[in-house]
Amino acid sequence: MSLVGAGPGDPELLPYRAIQRLQHADLVLFDGLVPSQVVQLAQHAEHLSVSKRVGSKSITQDDITALMLAGARAGKRVVRLKAGDPFVFGRGGEEMLALVAAGIPFDVVPGVSAAIAGPALAGIPVTHRNVASGFVVVSGHGAAAYGALLSALPPASATVVVLMGLGERAGIQTRLVDGGWDPHTPAAIVFSASQPDQRTWIGTLGALASADVGQREDPGVIVIGQVVSLATMPDLVHSFVREETSWQPTTIQRL
Amino acid sequence: MSLVGAGPGDPELLPYRAIQRLQHADLVLFDGLVPSQVVQLAQHAEHLSVSKRVGSKSITQDDITALMLAGARAGKRVVRLKAGDPFVFGRGGEEMLALVAAGIPFDVVPGVSAAIAGPALAGIPVTHRNVASGFVVVSGHGAAAYGALLSALPPASATVVVLMGLGERAGIQTRLVDGGWDPHTPAAIVFSASQPDQRTWIGTLGALASADVGQREDPGVIVIGQVVSLATMPDLVHSFVREETSWQPTTIQRL
Repeated sequence: MSLVGAGPGDPELLPYRAIQRLQHADLVLFDGLVPSQVVQLAQHAEHLSVSKRVGSKSITQDDITALMLAGARAGKRVVRLKAGDPFVFGRGGEEMLALVAAGIPFDVVPGVSAAIAGPALAGIPVTHRNVASGFVVVSGHGAAAYGALLSALPPASATVVVLMGLGERAGIQTRLVDGGWDPHTPAAIVFSASQPDQRTWIGTLGALASADVGQREDPGVIVIGQVVSLATMPDLVHSFVREETSWQPTTIQRL
Repeated sequence: MSLVGAGPGDPELLPYRAIQRLQHADLVLFDGLVPSQVVQLAQHAEHLSVSKRVGSKSITQDDITALMLAGARAGKRVVRLKAGDPFVFGRGGEEMLALVAAGIPFDVVPGVSAAIAGPALAGIPVTHRNVASGFVVVSGHGAAAYGALLSALPPASATVVVLMGLGERAGIQTRLVDGGWDPHTPAAIVFSASQPDQRTWIGTLGALASADVGQREDPGVIVIGQVVSLATMPDLVHSFVREETSWQPTTIQRL
């Protein structure tokens, strides 16, 4: 039994160990946001979507836990495949506690979190000498989740990263500006980070709420802070993100 | 030319793409904290340590940049291999800007950051429903870097993660407690995360400064917040971190 982070989307950003777990799995329980290319690395496994959003009847966290435990107890090598990192807004902690309570051995395979990699792949470092010496990561799932923290953040004291925050842009903007942040602070939204359709909106904190984000299903990564100004060469950033290197993928050797 | 994150230490936590870059590199410029097992994945490359701490004469950031540029201009496939993630306190942003200024094409391969994976591998999720809905990551390199931010953080509003903060434990503790944090807030220090000698100290915020951290060279990851209380079964956590699975590493298939 393994709690595995699927990373931001590109299968090549999966850690070696995550690929191993998938290739040896009997059953993969995957979130709705995990791209099919990642799920399909589990070539010998049953694939079961446990998206809480899709389908006619909704799957609860209890259902997911029950599936994990039933699979493990049936002797299956179960991979619980979670978007991003298992412990960053993924309820992986709850799944860990359920496994502990059930006495089922497991391991955790950390993933590349979109909180850091999303900005990075758009040319935005979350920290930068003399610009940002720390960063704050919150979820946009409800104002209670981020309100007190963002309202108290001293202006420009850290880079702010919001995952799943597209629907809360107005609230995020208001709390920071009311707290003294300059509305001209650079801000970005990275969509589909690491995926072929990656796209970045770059603007300011004051324009965040009114940014045209279209009708994308992707949850997006919001970044607010002076570090965004480092990604001022979108053509170049675009080129390095997309760069077709001469380094062809080949079978990697055993570690 | 590639800016690659080496992750927390275990080579199996390297993303597939990072392994590719190393296996095809001609020159690897690596930080002092990167384990030799990771560097040695670059079997066909010249390995050059650019640690700023080791050796009789110190290497400056300008020296590193010059080596990167010279290698790239000589037509070498250069990997700049940085501990953790390239853009989390790694000065990777500066290296990116130098490459942009020099017109050298490059890509960024995000890594598994110890800020998230360090706690995770000790059984500590940085977020947890109804316990922590966000996290703050700072560096302990100087009070100016973390002071204003930590002093302003509302008590228990987020999980606090400090990288390279062992020498600043007293300052971190004081700023949080003076800001109203309960000294009984659980705290942990994860040493050598993901490495064979991983070890976790678990205590409280009030005991952080006086924790016996020995003479380890490892920079450690400090975690402060109620999420630490989830790692209350050290034997179990130890066992899952160390678990020898029946899933033998084999050559992974081309993605």
